[in-house]
Amino acid sequence: MTERQIVQCVPNISEGRRLDVVEAIVEQVRQTEGVKLLDYSSDHDHNRSVITYVGDLESVQEASFRLTQEAVRLINMEEHQGAHPRIGAVDVIPLIPIEGITMKECVEGATILAERITSELNVPTYLYGEAARQPARKNLSNIRKGNYEGLKESIQEEARIPDFGPAKMHETAGATVVGARMPLVAFNVNLGTDKKEIADTIARCVRERNGGFKNVKGMGVLLEERGQVQVSMNLENYMTTPIYRVLETIRREAARYGVPVVGTEVIGLVPQQALLDVANWYLQLEDFDSNQVLENHLR
Amino acid sequence: MTERQIVQCVPNISEGRRLDVVEAIVEQVRQTEGVKLLDYSSDHDHNRSVITYVGDLESVQEASFRLTQEAVRLINMEEHQGAHPRIGAVDVIPLIPIEGITMKECVEGATILAERITSELNVPTYLYGEAARQPARKNLSNIRKGNYEGLKESIQEEARIPDFGPAKMHETAGATVVGARMPLVAFNVNLGTDKKEIADTIARCVRERNGGFKNVKGMGVLLEERGQVQVSMNLENYMTTPIYRVLETIRREAARYGVPVVGTEVIGLVPQQALLDVANWYLQLEDFDSNQVLENHLR
Repeated sequence: MTERQIVQCVPNISEGRRLDVVEAIVEQVRQTEGVKLLDYSSDHDHNRSVITYVGDLESVQEASFRLTQEAVRLINMEEHQGAHPRIGAVDVIPLIPIEGITMKECVEGATILAERITSELNVPTYLYGEAARQPARKNLSNIRKGNYEGLKESIQEEARIPDFGPAKMHETAGATVVGARMPLVAFNVNLGTDKKEIADTIARCVRERNGGFKNVKGMGVLLEERGQVQVSMNLENYMTTPIYRVLETIRREAARYGVPVVGTEVIGLVPQQALLDVANWYLQLEDFDSNQVLENHLR
Repeated sequence: MTERQIVQCVPNISEGRRLDVVEAIVEQVRQTEGVKLLDYSSDHDHNRSVITYVGDLESVQEASFRLTQEAVRLINMEEHQGAHPRIGAVDVIPLIPIEGITMKECVEGATILAERITSELNVPTYLYGEAARQPARKNLSNIRKGNYEGLKESIQEEARIPDFGPAKMHETAGATVVGARMPLVAFNVNLGTDKKEIADTIARCVRERNGGFKNVKGMGVLLEERGQVQVSMNLENYMTTPIYRVLETIRREAARYGVPVVGTEVIGLVPQQALLDVANWYLQLEDFDSNQVLENHLR
């Protein structure tokens, strides 16, 4: 198999209403060689857009820089309103290792990108996730506390000083968070009951916050039209906490209430390996290698 | 996702000892644009080589023709000895639909290829598998009956007249079988017992020949070093007879003897979809699309 490197990048920008502006920013990604734009979508209420692309690390860094440069030029945070937490024109840039690259390399790549954004665009940057240099900054919400408006007031406080750049927001673009994280698998399990408290209870069993699996976030949801409930989750590290282990735990917990699993959902994109791991586990494969997948020889 | 077409082709040639000859023949595939050589291997006792490549239909047809042309030039069946059944220098050329192509298109492609081999190389050809024009020719072994030597004697008998070309073997290259079939999944299930009769019994439960699943071949095997037995199978249509259904049937049958499934094996290459179907079934996914696999956007 040809060795190739795939980094996924999913920047969130603080513009979801002026679609011509979004287009101009996305165009920077399209124009960058070595990068493939997979998806972008804008939310009016959040006034925010999410852009997804992949490529080798160097190309993804370049595309992310150009995207940021254009967003800094076109978005004025002084005029921005929206429901979603945000601190800057480009709010957050996560680099995600998919294939042929380590998390460590993505952390280094994120650090170099953050430095460049600060030095060339004069936007202060924070490092988060696996790239965080302070434990509190692993968690994005700690960095975003108070939003653009609040950070502007408190940026000179010791706990809030940026990792790169002056302790001063960019006049129109605010600040940007750059980091590295594992790909996230959005996985929902639908239960054959309409009792939401059962989904709530099971969500607490499996999520990290209440003693469940590490890197699992989850909550109970009522699916009114179906008359069923759902355990809705983000699995933030499918390698250490695989889909099948979470599902089988939920199945077991639900059985305790006489409730069956009636179906599941994977939302959006998922790395191939996360599903191969599922097949591997249920089939009890003894010695399987993803190079045995025919299509993996075709890239 | 970019629409692309993948046909797999796995010709078997009647040369497994003169490796320079094998190289020269394989080189024809390497030199054909639009085709990717995945693997080739030679067996000395069988005096036979198997070559695997993929590409769009037209490129695969071209590579297969050039390979045949070179094999006809370099292999003399009058001098060929080997344990494996065979009727010609290029014994069989199966076209296998993998992605973006129907079985019907592969059948048409195989037919055109067979016609070309006959008209340009003067080698009579038979159509087999899904491309067969006579029911008996669906099965390769019916066409190969008597081998090169036997077919040479009987080729003018009505049942043995080639689909294309004169009822006369090529003087040195014999005849060639061309056809289309589904990808084959070689799947073994290892059982926690050393009683081979249990593997034999279960093989009979699941294989088509004894009333089991259609397109499943299988037999019991003793794994002496492990002190275990195995149900060794070929699943010849993973779409209509999926891996998980065969495994779960074996698991149930083995439980009747108090025997557990201790592991399984997939041998060689397998289409991605065959494993996605496994993940999909065990996860009880409600609405999954293979376009959700991140890597499927990268080709």
